[in-house]
Amino acid sequence: MPRFPHFSNRVQDLGGSIFERYEKSMRAQGDNLVRMHIGDTYRQPDYPLAFEEQFRQSHPNFNCYPNTFGTTALRRLLHEKVNEDNFELKGIENIMVSSGGTHALSAAMMAILNPGDEVIIPTPAWPLYFGIVKLAGGTYRELPLFADESEMNTAELSAALESCLTERTVAIYVNSPNNPSGRQLTEAQLQTIIHFAERRNLWIIADEAYDGLVYDGEASPSLASLPGAFERTLTVFTFSKLFMFAGIRLGYLTGPAEAVRKANAALVHQIYSAQMPGQLLLEEAVKTRREWKPRVIDAFRHARDHFMLHCPVDIAAPAGGYFAFFDIKDYLNGRDYWDVIEACIDGGVSPAAGINFGSDFGTWLRLCFTGEPHERLQLGLERLGRVLLNGA
Amino acid sequence: MPRFPHFSNRVQDLGGSIFERYEKSMRAQGDNLVRMHIGDTYRQPDYPLAFEEQFRQSHPNFNCYPNTFGTTALRRLLHEKVNEDNFELKGIENIMVSSGGTHALSAAMMAILNPGDEVIIPTPAWPLYFGIVKLAGGTYRELPLFADESEMNTAELSAALESCLTERTVAIYVNSPNNPSGRQLTEAQLQTIIHFAERRNLWIIADEAYDGLVYDGEASPSLASLPGAFERTLTVFTFSKLFMFAGIRLGYLTGPAEAVRKANAALVHQIYSAQMPGQLLLEEAVKTRREWKPRVIDAFRHARDHFMLHCPVDIAAPAGGYFAFFDIKDYLNGRDYWDVIEACIDGGVSPAAGINFGSDFGTWLRLCFTGEPHERLQLGLERLGRVLLNGA
Repeated sequence: MPRFPHFSNRVQDLGGSIFERYEKSMRAQGDNLVRMHIGDTYRQPDYPLAFEEQFRQSHPNFNCYPNTFGTTALRRLLHEKVNEDNFELKGIENIMVSSGGTHALSAAMMAILNPGDEVIIPTPAWPLYFGIVKLAGGTYRELPLFADESEMNTAELSAALESCLTERTVAIYVNSPNNPSGRQLTEAQLQTIIHFAERRNLWIIADEAYDGLVYDGEASPSLASLPGAFERTLTVFTFSKLFMFAGIRLGYLTGPAEAVRKANAALVHQIYSAQMPGQLLLEEAVKTRREWKPRVIDAFRHARDHFMLHCPVDIAAPAGGYFAFFDIKDYLNGRDYWDVIEACIDGGVSPAAGINFGSDFGTWLRLCFTGEPHERLQLGLERLGRVLLNGA
Repeated sequence: MPRFPHFSNRVQDLGGSIFERYEKSMRAQGDNLVRMHIGDTYRQPDYPLAFEEQFRQSHPNFNCYPNTFGTTALRRLLHEKVNEDNFELKGIENIMVSSGGTHALSAAMMAILNPGDEVIIPTPAWPLYFGIVKLAGGTYRELPLFADESEMNTAELSAALESCLTERTVAIYVNSPNNPSGRQLTEAQLQTIIHFAERRNLWIIADEAYDGLVYDGEASPSLASLPGAFERTLTVFTFSKLFMFAGIRLGYLTGPAEAVRKANAALVHQIYSAQMPGQLLLEEAVKTRREWKPRVIDAFRHARDHFMLHCPVDIAAPAGGYFAFFDIKDYLNGRDYWDVIEACIDGGVSPAAGINFGSDFGTWLRLCFTGEPHERLQLGLERLGRVLLNGA
């Protein structure tokens, strides 16, 4: 019992930002720092954003509470979008607008996990997801999946999944295209995961934050479009990546109506509803996406290629997403991993530490290639090169 | 263990909106319905709201992730505001911007409550708070406080507080001015609660959503300004009420730095951060509040007076807030309470059902006097009168 001044066990070992550890060094760098640690984009949305007087006139209720599931207009547009781009949804009862993709995941986990329940997390994985599971009272098992140079075949994947199963396992998290590796699972791999979930009666949490952001070859289908998946899958989308509007903090959860309804019960008691002006603002962006989407994908592919051209470490090009993820153990040369990260920051470039993405990645770095304009990106990679080769 | 397709115990008996029960009837009314059930305001914010091209130019990062505690600029302004209007805060480390006041409460409860812990809730109380406690795994005891015609003196209050105490009590919720009653606690009552919390080593959750909205006499001081309070008090403020911008879903939590930090750990794993454009937008509103605040309070007082002039039930005028809350048992005349509520809606006016505000209020109604322009407000009250007197 957390008698004043103590806190709940739930948040006891739960950190805030994963960058807390070197926030001070980053602040000391000021504008000099090439910010490559977070999945942001310096590109402003280049689709129309209505606001101000004209917006006040056309949306007289912009200041009022929206429906807790989101505005009907935006949900209708998203319904159309998901049906066209991802998988079949019956209606807007299968959609809930959330305060970002993070929040859709949080509401979903609050609705699914009882204290002590386990989730299987293929790694490397987006760091906040570990904490989201913990906040809901759950625990997790890591399944190394995205870092291997060679792709796991379906038999290997099936065996690996089974080895993670315990009596308390209730769900599996699938983030493809993956943050941080930039890899996507193949359709066969997705189907293997679905069969496993069917066999073991698990929920699937499909985190498709990087929906649409594949630069080479064809994008794998959305998990929930595959046979057997929809009824047990909660899919999370966001406006933070392809839509380049992380600051708006809007995303959406899709899935079976009853599951969405239960996640909404959690959402209502977390934030009451997602914000109104942003939902009104994004209608136009969703409507016009076919026009601007190729332009954005080209720009991000170009950024990825520019990154690869100047990356001081020999790595495979990330096929999608915002990031490259790679091991620097050959560049440590006896130096401590955290000292190298501090040296990066003191040298004016900020990576994210691999250890936050899974216990196997204590010598890895994640770099975002969309967060800075090309010249700054190149500068950051030159600085990284100097730090890494400095140890040689 | 919530095996598919079951959900966590946590959300099992947790409803979404409290209006779900008569949502369909309300929808059937369309624009005819005089909406008095929710604490909204038809008045648009009349302070400057910058956006569009000019906003893009002046805030080049409006689309990016803000700091998880909120933007430094807004926190500095809020620091100044709280110091001037409410109580002394050391610095911005005592402030966290959240996705609405609801969210500040949710993050605070996630940080404070362990499963099974109890909170004392003076009633009638804002309905979502009961669910926020449940979502954090907690339970609660109701303390009837705001509905009595006669004010509880400090000895009575002290005894009432002690009678709610159990071994699992860890916190007390204080919402003054109160939603739904419009009453505020006196300084002596607040001090009694603080002494009780000190004696019993409890956290205090001060929900000051209606901060500044007192229409008669003097406003009581903020709870955290009183001796002994600050170190154990998390105070929640919002932009939804005085700032008339419920749709923006922004609020803030203030308190001891370590408690704010722990609540932020919860916030990060709920939504990552509050939205950026809204935070940028509200800087001007906070800066200029001295200019527009008297205008808004006058307008709301005027609405309250208009409400009192046309209210068909003889009640005491609410001293603050957005609502009137009163018993209609003398008007039931053998009719079922819920049938009367349905009759209201079918007659074109929507109340909130008192039972959601505490177990003692099964024959009460809450009406919002700020959600509709004056003529519509009058129309709604005439309609209410017809339904109530219809049973006579």
